[in-house]
Amino acid sequence: MYDLIIIGMGPGGFEATLLSLRKKLNIAIVEQSKIGGNCLNRACIPTKYFWTGAHQISKMSILKEYGILADKFEIDFSKGFEGKEKAITFLRKSLSMLLKSKKVPVYKGYGRIIDKNKVEVKKNDGTVEIIEGKNILISTGSIPISVGGLTPDGENILTTEDILENMNTLPEEIAVIGGGVAGCELGYVLSKYGVKVHIIELMDRLLPSKEISSEISKYLLRKFKQNKINVYLNTTVKQHFINDEKIKVELSDGNILNVDKILLTVGRKPNSDIDEIGIEKDDKGFIKVNKKMQTNFENIYACGDVVNSPMLAYVASYEAKIAVKNILGKEEEVNYDLIPYVIFFANEIATVGISEDEAKKSGLDIVTGYYPFTYNEKAVDEHENDGFVKLIFDKETKKILGGSIVGTGASEMIHLIQLFIKEKYTAEKIHDFIYFHPSLSEIFIYATYDVVEGKLF
Amino acid sequence: MYDLIIIGMGPGGFEATLLSLRKKLNIAIVEQSKIGGNCLNRACIPTKYFWTGAHQISKMSILKEYGILADKFEIDFSKGFEGKEKAITFLRKSLSMLLKSKKVPVYKGYGRIIDKNKVEVKKNDGTVEIIEGKNILISTGSIPISVGGLTPDGENILTTEDILENMNTLPEEIAVIGGGVAGCELGYVLSKYGVKVHIIELMDRLLPSKEISSEISKYLLRKFKQNKINVYLNTTVKQHFINDEKIKVELSDGNILNVDKILLTVGRKPNSDIDEIGIEKDDKGFIKVNKKMQTNFENIYACGDVVNSPMLAYVASYEAKIAVKNILGKEEEVNYDLIPYVIFFANEIATVGISEDEAKKSGLDIVTGYYPFTYNEKAVDEHENDGFVKLIFDKETKKILGGSIVGTGASEMIHLIQLFIKEKYTAEKIHDFIYFHPSLSEIFIYATYDVVEGKLF
Repeated sequence: MYDLIIIGMGPGGFEATLLSLRKKLNIAIVEQSKIGGNCLNRACIPTKYFWTGAHQISKMSILKEYGILADKFEIDFSKGFEGKEKAITFLRKSLSMLLKSKKVPVYKGYGRIIDKNKVEVKKNDGTVEIIEGKNILISTGSIPISVGGLTPDGENILTTEDILENMNTLPEEIAVIGGGVAGCELGYVLSKYGVKVHIIELMDRLLPSKEISSEISKYLLRKFKQNKINVYLNTTVKQHFINDEKIKVELSDGNILNVDKILLTVGRKPNSDIDEIGIEKDDKGFIKVNKKMQTNFENIYACGDVVNSPMLAYVASYEAKIAVKNILGKEEEVNYDLIPYVIFFANEIATVGISEDEAKKSGLDIVTGYYPFTYNEKAVDEHENDGFVKLIFDKETKKILGGSIVGTGASEMIHLIQLFIKEKYTAEKIHDFIYFHPSLSEIFIYATYDVVEGKLF
Repeated sequence: MYDLIIIGMGPGGFEATLLSLRKKLNIAIVEQSKIGGNCLNRACIPTKYFWTGAHQISKMSILKEYGILADKFEIDFSKGFEGKEKAITFLRKSLSMLLKSKKVPVYKGYGRIIDKNKVEVKKNDGTVEIIEGKNILISTGSIPISVGGLTPDGENILTTEDILENMNTLPEEIAVIGGGVAGCELGYVLSKYGVKVHIIELMDRLLPSKEISSEISKYLLRKFKQNKINVYLNTTVKQHFINDEKIKVELSDGNILNVDKILLTVGRKPNSDIDEIGIEKDDKGFIKVNKKMQTNFENIYACGDVVNSPMLAYVASYEAKIAVKNILGKEEEVNYDLIPYVIFFANEIATVGISEDEAKKSGLDIVTGYYPFTYNEKAVDEHENDGFVKLIFDKETKKILGGSIVGTGASEMIHLIQLFIKEKYTAEKIHDFIYFHPSLSEIFIYATYDVVEGKLF
């Protein structure tokens, strides 16, 4: 009997593996598809790979400013796809090699919990095997949802997975249904690689979530317009017709698009059809867990997209660690207070803590600090001086409650804001911190200056 | 009578200006040359500008991995120089415009303190004017030093200033005398732009300073070799001969170089010949100050390279703020405990807190956490997975004492380590912090894993 059976080898499963191995737990892994899960194989990592390419494409026109004359470049997405495959394969192999060197049994197949200590694996080779474990961790992730008669078919109507894992040539024109993180990130990337992109969003703004301030949605919309990405807000797909060559998409606002592909990015649902023993789920299918990530069976844990917490790879890893720590008898509970959110588009967007909109809605008395990258010397040196930082402070104590960064380096610098919030820093402490010059992080000096020392104008 | 006269408009002078204006001080500025000082016009900012170009040049060969086919690019340094001029001019104008809009008088000329409240300005137009101030801030910076018969002449024997401000075409071959920060940064940049570079260093390693661990010096040496930069350690220039075409440089190890230019980067000395009232200086010419940045005249302050503290732009700004706060009656003292050090070469190098070498020398009982960028997903996505992080912990308490990052993003991420040290974080708190995935900052999770949870191997 194993100490722990891990079903699903994405970020959650892998983190659980890393910690279990260090703690000498005897573990087994059940994974139907590729090691690394969606994140590595068909979501985060390929997206950021192509984003790096897209960002580089957008910089080609300014290379002459550095004396690099490369005007005659061409774009061949299939070569980029090969590069992506190389990078992902390299990373996946490093995970596989670790498992091999540690002699961790990997059951390749579909796992189903048939008893609180038993997992039945319908293996990809057709055989069935039942394995036993003292503990089980469900980290089976999520699957895309459909909307309005649009059902992914891998051919005309695509999921992000289809694009990121399989599509090595690009369509000429695409309709992206959903203007959330996935739609915006992929929409931008495809557009930079030469695809004509339409984004259709039901709500009145891009990135419609409480973590993102409407100010950022507006900024993003402006940038998308500059990048000639068509955005349709307050709009749905009325109907669509698949012809031989094109797909005709009728929008609720009367517009008609003729595209080659439709990309569905309207959300995901938990992949929780995993047991026959009555593991409790909520009405959306999320597995119910307590703060130790335990299900209603005390030896069965769940983490990641399959539970009702932010659907983010690093939240899955975090929850996996908490689960394993509890299995090891170290009582720890999850705390979602300070999760950074990051989106990659023409620039990076990152936010943590309370947003300005939320603060106002809650009636909090706040003061904000704002500074654009316009005059940040490092950003100017890099021709990346678009964007801004905005910090939210409690008006009385001047303690920081939240912050957003839009601009280059945001996905790394956001951790500084996160740490400032965690340590209850005042505007003054943030201002007086010594930052390297020239660095992008110096923007914090200037975004706090008015609050700390009074206004310049 | 002004509230404050600021002599020298580099990072120190400018920071003093910003704070003084917010506090409604009536100020005047004396500056002989360009607004922004060395840092903006002929040091930090142009260096990082050209470094951005150099880094991009080094990336041209991997663009095909993203489907960007740009093999047929050319390098024209003079175009890069024009781009640099544009960027610097943009930034300098923004400073000038601020001064203009605030109606701050700028006396263009050489300022000399002739009385504790009087500055005589020999103006660039030939006239002389005496201005009076309740307080004076000396932020006159530093000038390059010569060594071994090598005297900068602006033609054959150059300073970093000559190169960064004036040299719009490149020599074929150059001898860089001094393997410190300036020599390594410019050596790398020139090499990437096609110059054959020789670096001659007196000591037994590159970057020979107590802040930099010998491990980093070795790494840098290896990278320079890969980049075909010749490094001569334990070596000096015996003599040199300037002929019509070439400069013959005889090294102490017997090697003879034939180069087009010599670049002197052996250090700088304070530009402190500034008064005739007996402002106290040490034997190296640094102006003596107390922790409030006051000289032996209580109304005369000094900051930046002209005082004996780390010769860094952001230290100058920091000291300037402390000086102005004291002028404003808010008693504050400088604290140099946590200054980040950053060097840009093929990669970025950043370090803060105690170095491993220093910790060992001091007999501290330490444990280290190390992790390479090799498998960091974001770094792999960017083809930037060279480098590593190393963290130094107290062996008993596991509190962090110092850390270094070598790799992309180091110059920003170093602030996280700095904040970890400032807040006395243990390895466990660093490990348990939630980092965005995929981010470079995740390297901290893995560099602390062994210390916190036990070894994997």
